[in-house]
Amino acid sequence: MTTTQPVRIDVDVVIVGSGFGALAAAQKLAGTDLGVLVVSKTTEHLFQPLLYQVATGVLAPGEIAPPIRSILGRHKNIDVRLGEVIDVDADAKTVTYRWGDARTVVGYRYLVAATGASQSYFGHPEFAENTFALKTIDDALTLRDHILANFELAHALPSSAERDELLSFVVVGAGATGVELAGQIRELARRYFDSGSGGIPADDVRVVLVDGAPDVLPVYGGKLSEYTARTLRRAGVDVRTAAVVTAVDDEGVELHADGRAARIPARTVVWSAGVEASGFAGVLAAATGCAQDRAGRLLVGDDLTVGGHADVFAIGDMTSLGGLPGQSPVAMQQGRHAACIIAGKTARGTAFRYLDKGSMATIDRFHAVASVGPVKLTGVVAWMMWLAVHLLYLVGFRNRYVAVLSWFGSFVGKNRPHFHLAVPGAQVAEPAESVEVSA
Amino acid sequence: MTTTQPVRIDVDVVIVGSGFGALAAAQKLAGTDLGVLVVSKTTEHLFQPLLYQVATGVLAPGEIAPPIRSILGRHKNIDVRLGEVIDVDADAKTVTYRWGDARTVVGYRYLVAATGASQSYFGHPEFAENTFALKTIDDALTLRDHILANFELAHALPSSAERDELLSFVVVGAGATGVELAGQIRELARRYFDSGSGGIPADDVRVVLVDGAPDVLPVYGGKLSEYTARTLRRAGVDVRTAAVVTAVDDEGVELHADGRAARIPARTVVWSAGVEASGFAGVLAAATGCAQDRAGRLLVGDDLTVGGHADVFAIGDMTSLGGLPGQSPVAMQQGRHAACIIAGKTARGTAFRYLDKGSMATIDRFHAVASVGPVKLTGVVAWMMWLAVHLLYLVGFRNRYVAVLSWFGSFVGKNRPHFHLAVPGAQVAEPAESVEVSA
Repeated sequence: MTTTQPVRIDVDVVIVGSGFGALAAAQKLAGTDLGVLVVSKTTEHLFQPLLYQVATGVLAPGEIAPPIRSILGRHKNIDVRLGEVIDVDADAKTVTYRWGDARTVVGYRYLVAATGASQSYFGHPEFAENTFALKTIDDALTLRDHILANFELAHALPSSAERDELLSFVVVGAGATGVELAGQIRELARRYFDSGSGGIPADDVRVVLVDGAPDVLPVYGGKLSEYTARTLRRAGVDVRTAAVVTAVDDEGVELHADGRAARIPARTVVWSAGVEASGFAGVLAAATGCAQDRAGRLLVGDDLTVGGHADVFAIGDMTSLGGLPGQSPVAMQQGRHAACIIAGKTARGTAFRYLDKGSMATIDRFHAVASVGPVKLTGVVAWMMWLAVHLLYLVGFRNRYVAVLSWFGSFVGKNRPHFHLAVPGAQVAEPAESVEVSA
Repeated sequence: MTTTQPVRIDVDVVIVGSGFGALAAAQKLAGTDLGVLVVSKTTEHLFQPLLYQVATGVLAPGEIAPPIRSILGRHKNIDVRLGEVIDVDADAKTVTYRWGDARTVVGYRYLVAATGASQSYFGHPEFAENTFALKTIDDALTLRDHILANFELAHALPSSAERDELLSFVVVGAGATGVELAGQIRELARRYFDSGSGGIPADDVRVVLVDGAPDVLPVYGGKLSEYTARTLRRAGVDVRTAAVVTAVDDEGVELHADGRAARIPARTVVWSAGVEASGFAGVLAAATGCAQDRAGRLLVGDDLTVGGHADVFAIGDMTSLGGLPGQSPVAMQQGRHAACIIAGKTARGTAFRYLDKGSMATIDRFHAVASVGPVKLTGVVAWMMWLAVHLLYLVGFRNRYVAVLSWFGSFVGKNRPHFHLAVPGAQVAEPAESVEVSA
């Protein structure tokens, strides 16, 4: 499946990544006379804020992760390649990306790095082995299949401690992703077990949301955090704040709270508690002499350049700049800033300024919180805002009808179409419908 | 993840399978005073006729494979379990199904077997290792990812014999599935490579359709087969009939045609040329003393009973009865027939009669063939019929809005939303959006 003869391409701008920052930079450069190459490890642009809905069967991957080609394909000055960038030579001004054994060398005039961040386990790498992550489409599909497998297996068991373990879900990290996932798992349990089959009451499904901070959604705090915790508890989520995870194994987690240790038996522990810069940040740091913080984030200049190289930019979650939050609006604005400097629309060395338009998080259907400057909103009003902002973004892509329909059909409605699972190890056979006609 | 203590359930009717026949039988028994348990190896009812569209990214699995629970869940007398039936005791009137190590014993008054068929390689099991099948959702997803990987890898290669191999697709078996898949891969290539990126002309993608019969869609023959071959060739498909596959390796296939041998280099060979009864047919044959044909199909009685057991029925592609075609209408009518006998609406021993309403196959957008008794239809008229019949069936399920919309958005339109892929072995990282707020 691979080749050993390397290919060389020369472009004006190479953008590494396919997230919010990379896409914003590429779109800002669309239609200019600059030749742009986007190199990404995945074919899709992942709309991460809705990834938890893929993990719970509400949306299909394709509905929140359109192929980058289909988004950028119409711009003749932009090409897209699938590959992992493994080397940067900031003096020769080349990056090398791989697919299997195939190597491609790309000569650039400008480099924009936007590879984001991955999960952090706060110095407990062993936690990763016994927890599920929720950072990529594949993470979401793995978690989705696991949830469904536990639901189905529970039907085969009498009421027992083992069945309780199967139906217990611990979500570590009460940020937006953790809060949304906890709420959605409760929602899914209602749909699934109240659908008439199986005879397991939905309330047998236990969802525990854990965070070391005293509040859920600690970034908001105050009334919004209180409202969120209240709403989650009303939905049946067991909220444990100021609780630190001290151990995780495949049958549960150990918590430490109020000076006491507690164990929660659960076959499913989802980790969404921290981030660290992607591995490419290290490659780029070594190539440019740029410093990194404890989370591996690049300490970029005010103008987003890396290690004093005027032609190398890094943006988004792989960077640290003045304590800006690792959120998509920051990455998108940084991407446009770097693109404007490259396109000559903004003077070299111009410092990046973040325009904070506020932030919001959804809790479950019809409940969300939003913070816009001094204005704090909760409930259905905030939820409509959240819905509008997210749909508006997705509408930018050509799969909007699918996303919008599935949304109202599944998320707001009762449908969970995107579950399928086979018995592990079974030889699955399906009706042959039309094949045999040529037999 | 499993238990060793076995659970015993007793029901009036146990239905094994989740295909067209099983579902028709279950729906016929819905609302009766009979307790029905459906045991299936997969959670979904697969609408196999559109599986090729999942393999080519047009539709998401959930759009053609709704969970059986969501279809049958509203009927209080029907329960659904995920498991593989591994044993039948026709005298004790029990079936045993497994999930992992968990065993469940189900006592029944009536057993309906409907587990369908799997791929047959005509005595060349080694072909299976180097070909892709298209029988299950997982088959379709595997093929989909492989097609996309080859398309993407081709971008990393200069024009070369290796690139040609990557972009060559051989479909063995010109039945409905093979014809539809060949047409759809050409369609996909046009969308994918003419989308502006990559600079590979769509015509570099080669699709070869092979069948040992002298015609494509041999079940139709005559004008309809000629029309189909003509339409495929116009779409750029290389049609090779009366050609027998003599060898398959991971770099191509050997054909024998017109007394000459030929080799087609291709990294992708899809096998859709034959079927044999599912493994459960053997289990049931052993338990009931029922005979099987060369393809492992159960030689059931006229009344669909198995091995003379009046309380055991087998239907659909796992059976052979009077040369009926292995198509969904047969399976569905047989399922209803068995259900009517079980429910006492039809006298025991009544022979099954198949009502042939005709059959149809699609070639590509706006082209199909249909045969209804003496009437033969081709072109857009047949295609509209095909569309109507297939939508009508899907509309029976609650995910209709999703399916219908995706259909018009993707199949008829230009969108191919359901592709996503990561570089093999790469540590994929994505923007952290909302997770870090709790870090």
